[in-house]
Amino acid sequence: MPMTKVYLGTIIDTPKLGELRVIEHAAVFVNKKGVITRIMDISDKSFSEGRTAVMRETLSSEEAGIEIVDQDWMEDDEGNVVRKFWFPGFVDTHTHPSQHPNAGIFGKSTLLDWLNTYTFPLESSLSSPAKSRAVYTSFLTTSLRSGTTTASYYATSSTISTNTLATLCHARGQRAFIGRTNMDTDLQPPYYRDASASSALAATAATIAHIKSLDPTYDLIKPIITPRFAPSCSEELLAGLGSLAEKEDLPIQTHISENLDEVALVQRLFPGKGAGTYAGVYDHYGLLGPKTVLAHAVHLSPRSANSCAKEARRSPTVPGLCPVRALLDDGIEVGLGTDVSGGFSGSMLSAAREAGIVSRVLAGVEARGASIEGEAVGEGKAKQREKSDRVKLSPEECLYLATRGGATCLGLGDKVGAFEVGMEWDAQLIGLNEMRWEEQQAATTMSGVEPSNETDEERMKRLAKEIREEVEGGGGDGDGGREVVDGSEGLVELWGKETWSERIAKWVFCGDDRNTRRVYVRGDMVHSLDG
Amino acid sequence: MPMTKVYLGTIIDTPKLGELRVIEHAAVFVNKKGVITRIMDISDKSFSEGRTAVMRETLSSEEAGIEIVDQDWMEDDEGNVVRKFWFPGFVDTHTHPSQHPNAGIFGKSTLLDWLNTYTFPLESSLSSPAKSRAVYTSFLTTSLRSGTTTASYYATSSTISTNTLATLCHARGQRAFIGRTNMDTDLQPPYYRDASASSALAATAATIAHIKSLDPTYDLIKPIITPRFAPSCSEELLAGLGSLAEKEDLPIQTHISENLDEVALVQRLFPGKGAGTYAGVYDHYGLLGPKTVLAHAVHLSPRSANSCAKEARRSPTVPGLCPVRALLDDGIEVGLGTDVSGGFSGSMLSAAREAGIVSRVLAGVEARGASIEGEAVGEGKAKQREKSDRVKLSPEECLYLATRGGATCLGLGDKVGAFEVGMEWDAQLIGLNEMRWEEQQAATTMSGVEPSNETDEERMKRLAKEIREEVEGGGGDGDGGREVVDGSEGLVELWGKETWSERIAKWVFCGDDRNTRRVYVRGDMVHSLDG
Repeated sequence: MPMTKVYLGTIIDTPKLGELRVIEHAAVFVNKKGVITRIMDISDKSFSEGRTAVMRETLSSEEAGIEIVDQDWMEDDEGNVVRKFWFPGFVDTHTHPSQHPNAGIFGKSTLLDWLNTYTFPLESSLSSPAKSRAVYTSFLTTSLRSGTTTASYYATSSTISTNTLATLCHARGQRAFIGRTNMDTDLQPPYYRDASASSALAATAATIAHIKSLDPTYDLIKPIITPRFAPSCSEELLAGLGSLAEKEDLPIQTHISENLDEVALVQRLFPGKGAGTYAGVYDHYGLLGPKTVLAHAVHLSPRSANSCAKEARRSPTVPGLCPVRALLDDGIEVGLGTDVSGGFSGSMLSAAREAGIVSRVLAGVEARGASIEGEAVGEGKAKQREKSDRVKLSPEECLYLATRGGATCLGLGDKVGAFEVGMEWDAQLIGLNEMRWEEQQAATTMSGVEPSNETDEERMKRLAKEIREEVEGGGGDGDGGREVVDGSEGLVELWGKETWSERIAKWVFCGDDRNTRRVYVRGDMVHSLDG
Repeated sequence: MPMTKVYLGTIIDTPKLGELRVIEHAAVFVNKKGVITRIMDISDKSFSEGRTAVMRETLSSEEAGIEIVDQDWMEDDEGNVVRKFWFPGFVDTHTHPSQHPNAGIFGKSTLLDWLNTYTFPLESSLSSPAKSRAVYTSFLTTSLRSGTTTASYYATSSTISTNTLATLCHARGQRAFIGRTNMDTDLQPPYYRDASASSALAATAATIAHIKSLDPTYDLIKPIITPRFAPSCSEELLAGLGSLAEKEDLPIQTHISENLDEVALVQRLFPGKGAGTYAGVYDHYGLLGPKTVLAHAVHLSPRSANSCAKEARRSPTVPGLCPVRALLDDGIEVGLGTDVSGGFSGSMLSAAREAGIVSRVLAGVEARGASIEGEAVGEGKAKQREKSDRVKLSPEECLYLATRGGATCLGLGDKVGAFEVGMEWDAQLIGLNEMRWEEQQAATTMSGVEPSNETDEERMKRLAKEIREEVEGGGGDGDGGREVVDGSEGLVELWGKETWSERIAKWVFCGDDRNTRRVYVRGDMVHSLDG
């Protein structure tokens, strides 16, 4: 095993909200522990003898046992051109792998109907070791192939199911927070409910012990204290979980303010607790602090938001109409989550795309408000538009939320989510297809010599004949004109003139797991499309 | 060549809004012209000797030269299980293949900035035959692999570009309406504008002549009269296009009411025309009739909607906050379009998904309205919810809009978009992965004999050890625990208990082009993932 690996190629990250940092020719040094020790901009190096050779020469006197991972970012042998770059792995701040088999199924029913019809029976069935293993294995494959290197998970209330998830994450190398789901009230059906607060706490302790046995230093996997959400838990359980989190120095995750009925229910169930806010209820039981991750936060009251900003400073959101810009303006840290199976996709790229789309819908709503307000105070159209446009999240901003923003929510902002010396190499290699039509066309009959004396009609006929002949010839594959596509090609196409910002936008809007060629966590490869 | 083909397998379609029709074991007879001559439900046939054999025996006395296309819908040789079914090909009622290279790029700018920065320069550059061929070839590959069998296209104002699109659709076998984009006002930049109304009309006539020369009966490709939108055209051009459509008996497509600024612009530019409505302006110039397709229709005034319902009865929409249920309630026919590159994806499955999501956002908005109204008149919560829930479009409804709904908008409702005798075989073969975890697990160590006398802790340790060993063994591939994924597998997973309605929902929300295994137009195969 080499002591150090050097990753060559283009590196791109979003060190802060709205900034896209690109080094087109970089060399990233990663030590045996997966920590980045040096980042060199090698744009000025001579590549006449190949950059790998140049790197070897540069480094030979300094370092021993170096392995160079050279990703040619321009061309392959068959004339296909793929533009590659390294990007930080995604951070999924909130999801339920136990609901993975229901992804894409919603029905027309209410949240509570959906829970009773689909969610609770499925989660409950994962107390079968074989089933939980099959379901989590499949979710992890989806998550890793989609570039997620860190995730915060809700498992189920079953110890065996929760421990199976921990074992699988540890074995497959994904950085994860593993939450045993706690719930002892009759909001849950009798077949899927903790018998008592004390049995729930004991089971949670058992999952903590299992995770410690796998990873004593919590470097890769770590327990996270998980009350399902306030109405699922008795006061005794909430207080017990708060104490356990403090005693074990563990982070906490739960749900907050996903819809208005839920907010009303919390007010009804916890009268006089937490000064009348939802966040205040968690605070009351010792569950709101700098290590708390609050999922959804779509309908946060200003006072709840204020509590979060002051005390929690963490609030990931999930696809929905969450007012992200407003939360950011309030100083609340925001990340994204796939929220399977409330969310239909385990891909954070999809979550980033939806976050961008949702922000544009909100900007439209805002525009009407701004227009009404603006007219009233005599504000110009440009000023009104500026206000509503501010609500939109750019692809770069969505990617920040999907990487460093989420890492910060999970207390890992200095460790993963960007490429800096001292941070760990949690990275994905992205490949986007380039359409080199100028060169390709030069090689075909079509753009060959154009007779200068032909009429427009003659020209059109000649071109049509050329097209028909080539399509019918099938480009040599003789199958009647179909373009041969085997499904492994992604859908992103670069046409040669894009800026990096535009390439990134195409990846966010048109990309999928086919563009994620390789994935690394702490310097270990955990997924590769190259077999 | 056989006279008749028989397609065996599960067939599913949406004959009307909200209905999912499933025949699990069907035989569809398609004649040489691609027309469906018979649909048999063969569920009651004995399959002990294989259904292909059964079909041959059943048919041998009736038909000569039959080819049987037997798609096993359950299992392949490697133990992977793919559930397959035939579904009508998608109908894309509105898109701009000429903008394909910009898919995914939006910037933060306004519509007009976006047109000037991205759209007009690109469309203009397609007057290069080599470039238009490269761009349209690539778009058609995306469209066909995504299951689109019929599309209505905006090309560009260049004759050569428009004719190239027609030639390519004809050669590759996609059913298409080909529109040369007409625009002679200074809303367009000088470098991309028709010199005069008469030159625009002459160029349009030249594209009609070219399409006639390729397909004299317009069976596969057909011209469509295309004013870009009202503000792009002089009165002379609008009137001339109206006359041309009437003289040639051709359909018309244009844009309407995409945003409020545009609506205001039309009112300013056409004072006194069309009784003050946007639809009325088109009507005034002979462009609104039963063959008119109006894209967007997001902000249709009640009077415009009324004109459309009475006179046009066609109004496709594109992803956006279009009040689809309200349009349907008004008796307006609605289809979906990908609207590249206003839309980021050339896939109609993606358009169907977005239509569903948008309807849920609208239902949320509606719920607030219904709640305020309802409280005022003392209406109960249930009644209020019923009202807002009605706005939601189910996956079946979205698929209807993407197939038969769109076909109806394009005047093809009796020909394509569903499976009925007399209609044509425009179909896609969909494959969804089944996770047979029960059988798979039975074959592994994990669900083998469970020692009955072990403690919980012993059991957990044993299970964890088994998982680690299998992951580290890599299931026999020896690559350190990664699941081998080559990118060609889709993301839809069936877990064995789904109804057909739920399977369809998973396809709509989690599917992509990898699930579209084969595509047929008029009985001819135009795309296949099987090489």
